[in-house]
Amino acid sequence: MTDIMLNQVKELITKLEANHTDLYNDSFFITWRYPQETINAVLLVAKALMTLNRAGKSVRCFDTGLGLSIFRDKSTRTRYSFKSACNMLGLGTEELDESTSQIAHGETVRETATMISFLSEVIGIRDDMYIGVGHAYQKEFSDSIQESYDRGILPQRTSVVNLQCDLDHPTQALADLSHMIDYFGGVENLRGKKIAMTWAYSPSYGKPLSVPQGIVGLMSRFGMEVSLAYPEGYDLLDEPVQAAEKFSKETGGSFTVTHSMAEAFKDADIVYPKSWAPFTVMQQRTELLKAGRKAELIELEQQALARNASHKDWECTEELMKLTKGGKGLYCHCLPADISGVSCKEGECAASVFERYRLDTYAEAAHKPFVIAAMILLTRFPNPAKVLTQLMERERPRRLVLD
Amino acid sequence: MTDIMLNQVKELITKLEANHTDLYNDSFFITWRYPQETINAVLLVAKALMTLNRAGKSVRCFDTGLGLSIFRDKSTRTRYSFKSACNMLGLGTEELDESTSQIAHGETVRETATMISFLSEVIGIRDDMYIGVGHAYQKEFSDSIQESYDRGILPQRTSVVNLQCDLDHPTQALADLSHMIDYFGGVENLRGKKIAMTWAYSPSYGKPLSVPQGIVGLMSRFGMEVSLAYPEGYDLLDEPVQAAEKFSKETGGSFTVTHSMAEAFKDADIVYPKSWAPFTVMQQRTELLKAGRKAELIELEQQALARNASHKDWECTEELMKLTKGGKGLYCHCLPADISGVSCKEGECAASVFERYRLDTYAEAAHKPFVIAAMILLTRFPNPAKVLTQLMERERPRRLVLD
Amino acid sequence: MTDIMLNQVKELITKLEANHTDLYNDSFFITWRYPQETINAVLLVAKALMTLNRAGKSVRCFDTGLGLSIFRDKSTRTRYSFKSACNMLGLGTEELDESTSQIAHGETVRETATMISFLSEVIGIRDDMYIGVGHAYQKEFSDSIQESYDRGILPQRTSVVNLQCDLDHPTQALADLSHMIDYFGGVENLRGKKIAMTWAYSPSYGKPLSVPQGIVGLMSRFGMEVSLAYPEGYDLLDEPVQAAEKFSKETGGSFTVTHSMAEAFKDADIVYPKSWAPFTVMQQRTELLKAGRKAELIELEQQALARNASHKDWECTEELMKLTKGGKGLYCHCLPADISGVSCKEGECAASVFERYRLDTYAEAAHKPFVIAAMILLTRFPNPAKVLTQLMERERPRRLVLD
Repeated sequence: MTDIMLNQVKELITKLEANHTDLYNDSFFITWRYPQETINAVLLVAKALMTLNRAGKSVRCFDTGLGLSIFRDKSTRTRYSFKSACNMLGLGTEELDESTSQIAHGETVRETATMISFLSEVIGIRDDMYIGVGHAYQKEFSDSIQESYDRGILPQRTSVVNLQCDLDHPTQALADLSHMIDYFGGVENLRGKKIAMTWAYSPSYGKPLSVPQGIVGLMSRFGMEVSLAYPEGYDLLDEPVQAAEKFSKETGGSFTVTHSMAEAFKDADIVYPKSWAPFTVMQQRTELLKAGRKAELIELEQQALARNASHKDWECTEELMKLTKGGKGLYCHCLPADISGVSCKEGECAASVFERYRLDTYAEAAHKPFVIAAMILLTRFPNPAKVLTQLMERERPRRLVLD
Repeated sequence: MTDIMLNQVKELITKLEANHTDLYNDSFFITWRYPQETINAVLLVAKALMTLNRAGKSVRCFDTGLGLSIFRDKSTRTRYSFKSACNMLGLGTEELDESTSQIAHGETVRETATMISFLSEVIGIRDDMYIGVGHAYQKEFSDSIQESYDRGILPQRTSVVNLQCDLDHPTQALADLSHMIDYFGGVENLRGKKIAMTWAYSPSYGKPLSVPQGIVGLMSRFGMEVSLAYPEGYDLLDEPVQAAEKFSKETGGSFTVTHSMAEAFKDADIVYPKSWAPFTVMQQRTELLKAGRKAELIELEQQALARNASHKDWECTEELMKLTKGGKGLYCHCLPADISGVSCKEGECAASVFERYRLDTYAEAAHKPFVIAAMILLTRFPNPAKVLTQLMERERPRRLVLD
Repeated sequence: MTDIMLNQVKELITKLEANHTDLYNDSFFITWRYPQETINAVLLVAKALMTLNRAGKSVRCFDTGLGLSIFRDKSTRTRYSFKSACNMLGLGTEELDESTSQIAHGETVRETATMISFLSEVIGIRDDMYIGVGHAYQKEFSDSIQESYDRGILPQRTSVVNLQCDLDHPTQALADLSHMIDYFGGVENLRGKKIAMTWAYSPSYGKPLSVPQGIVGLMSRFGMEVSLAYPEGYDLLDEPVQAAEKFSKETGGSFTVTHSMAEAFKDADIVYPKSWAPFTVMQQRTELLKAGRKAELIELEQQALARNASHKDWECTEELMKLTKGGKGLYCHCLPADISGVSCKEGECAASVFERYRLDTYAEAAHKPFVIAAMILLTRFPNPAKVLTQLMERERPRRLVLD
């Protein structure tokens, strides 16, 4: 480990000691419901773990133990990130496949929660398909664990980590934020920067709202100028919007909503063009699905796609990029992006723009395993600064060191 | 580790030394075919592992190695328990998914058994769907491993652990027994206690017989009054019933069969109301499935469901619970239970009864990972008492210890 | 560890030091494209790892880290072998299931390659279904990793290991070769031995060509008499055939093609009768699949099966085995074999022949986990001889050692 890396980690630990968190023996759900210290702590621990890992240090904290995941929607990078996070901390991973479990046969959420927690340190859950359901499911899961822990059934208070729900996608937003901090050379440099979180056209249907909600609910905490742009009718849920308004006032930034992509891009330091479904459509869909009304579901999808198609001009083009700060605004995306002429005929982003920022989006994604590992560490240990100090000081390499 | 815990583990090790077992380099199949010492050893090792684990000790015995599972039926808790058991001992886990393997394409059982054993310490198998098939499959699997070991193909004699077959569900029954031992404060306190293993109504079809068979074949060994109750025609297989008769005579308990749920519940210290299919139905089903006679299979299911439905009065109600010892008999279940008005309209157990014992059933389930780990440890090491002594004495915490 | 084993490993390390390899920070694709030193190095490391493992030593090189697999075709033994290899080296394993990932939704190969490499040491890929596609896919995957590594996105240059492509099946061929070396008591004893790689009849359709291609492209390097036999029209691709011709000239062996199974078996020390599809059929199939022409695909399958059926006499019978050297030629197969009267009515091999060599084929398969582990070790460490020396010298048992 070089002296530079060592000093970096020491500095992160010092900062961490100044940020008291209450995550120990709890779950991690929604960024805007936590105080600033908690958010800072996640960022600091993630950065420290990444630095230690890249310095060849093992950050293993567990000799045995399990990290479980439940994915109720498709996932590549969040799934891999969760499993990487567990692995780097020393946890074995298992995935609960609801199709081969007995969940459909009378198991309740609270029962399952305990049954898979006996030797588990953390359970990561993605449930983002239905408005009003995803977070509620995760919360019920977490509360059931708490009950079994309080009653002495579980020897430890297994954490739930939100890997995306209907409200927030905290591991994504915090990874995005970590990338911006790296890119601009420090969290303090984000102050005054303009970020455009904008809707973009996609030929697909039903994309969750949790990414834009997570972005406005988080970036507004750092004194940034947050500009949210979408066609009329594609509003976000109230809670994250109100959080963004409140945070921007508190931190001396701003939060504005516009229906013009160009206006949002104007002088933006960062742009995040990304499709999502109108939440009214998501709500209708949730109700039709519950009622099993298939014909109407198909009709709804047709209508929603047609509605999307009337906004094909919401594409991140070279022309729009020229409007950004010095024509060099940073393009961000959670991936996979709908790239016009590459992954679809017409999509969220022009091919040439995406290609120019492609490796930046990869660097952005690289933060997610460490953000998740930070959430695990913060919820599993009462004194994360001490944990990091031990990891830094001990002689335990990640792989065999040749003499 | 507190002195109390330390003394508990020392006492368990002392008892273990008095129980000679022959499980080393063998498989674990069916409880009633083993001598009492073997059963005692599993219980003692499971309890010791649980105590060490809860004291924060790592019970890892393997630096590398694999634990494989094959599930030919759905499973949540046994699957998780097996993987937890492997993980706590230091084994990586993999599951053989027959749909993505080449098993359908000409691989024989004996070939597969060797192919997945080269670096495996244990293979857990659930195969409980067909009468006359499940145990035979596990036995063939185990015998093939033995042949390859004897002939020098395999460097170790990988164990097979029965995660449920057509005859027995030993990890369930031993977990249930561990729970009863805890609940009544010691195995010696089970002597003279009455347990009612009763059939109960369920709206589902084809539930395996291995749980009731496992319960009567095991609980009869401890001087308990075992009362087996079911509607006419829902008999169990002969072997476990004969084992129960023999054990109850040997240990001064009793084994009786009745066709009245109330009679079984009368003065019972423990009740275990649980649905199962008549084995004549299971036999017919096995034959029809083999012959691919689909129309008759559907007809058989209809008949069986109708037959079940004529016994809806076999429900564990508050009235029945009042008949138990002091109205406070312990309700047990392997979960998931069919709870009337909760997971089904009419089922095995009244909602209020289940709710009162819900956390007890969770505590019951908590033993399974440790029972499975005990079976692995006993089949993998020639001197389990020495293993436990080392695990107890060494300084190896399960997770990072903060100064 | 016995002195004999210790000396064996020391000798292997000494030989390894004489074989310079350039695999560090690279991928492993196709045997015939590597110099002889590389092939030797894989064989030596695999043998050393097997010896250390059987001596009870842990060969763990990684404290944390992941090994990922992508299987685009069914697999039992290669899948298990890859996971065993990762596990023995200390890597956790995850499998990318394309059906639950977002790959179908706009992710490109190059994007996926980076997304699953952040904390991965190795990615094993099987993609053998389509001529002209499998290797290209693996190569694109590997190149994408290289780009992200070069640009600082990835902290390590994750290796890709070819677990079977349209050209080669290197882990299979090298496991087969390791078996032959053991069987004949040393690689130098292979010189002058005759091996018959022959087509054999199978009632199934579309078996890949990579096994026979891998065998002729590899065995021709050791001064063996390689006889390739198949019915007219079942030619292999040019590249491995040309490699075999070149290698056999260089090493003083021979490479001949015949259309008579008997001629190939005549005086053979080793026979490898195994079905494959004509590559013209595989090519047509690839094109029809791309174009989605289902009716023609079914017709093609019918034609191909009929064509196969006209060669049912290509069966490894007792009569043919009598033609081999002293009637005792070694039968090899990658498994599962199509055994006449056992796994199919008429197939690749007579039941009595297979039964006589059954355990030999198991011993053959036993090498694969160590071959894969050798590839991982050689691609991950710059000085594999030093790694083996440390693994040999350190006191780290694979499992708890009882006093």
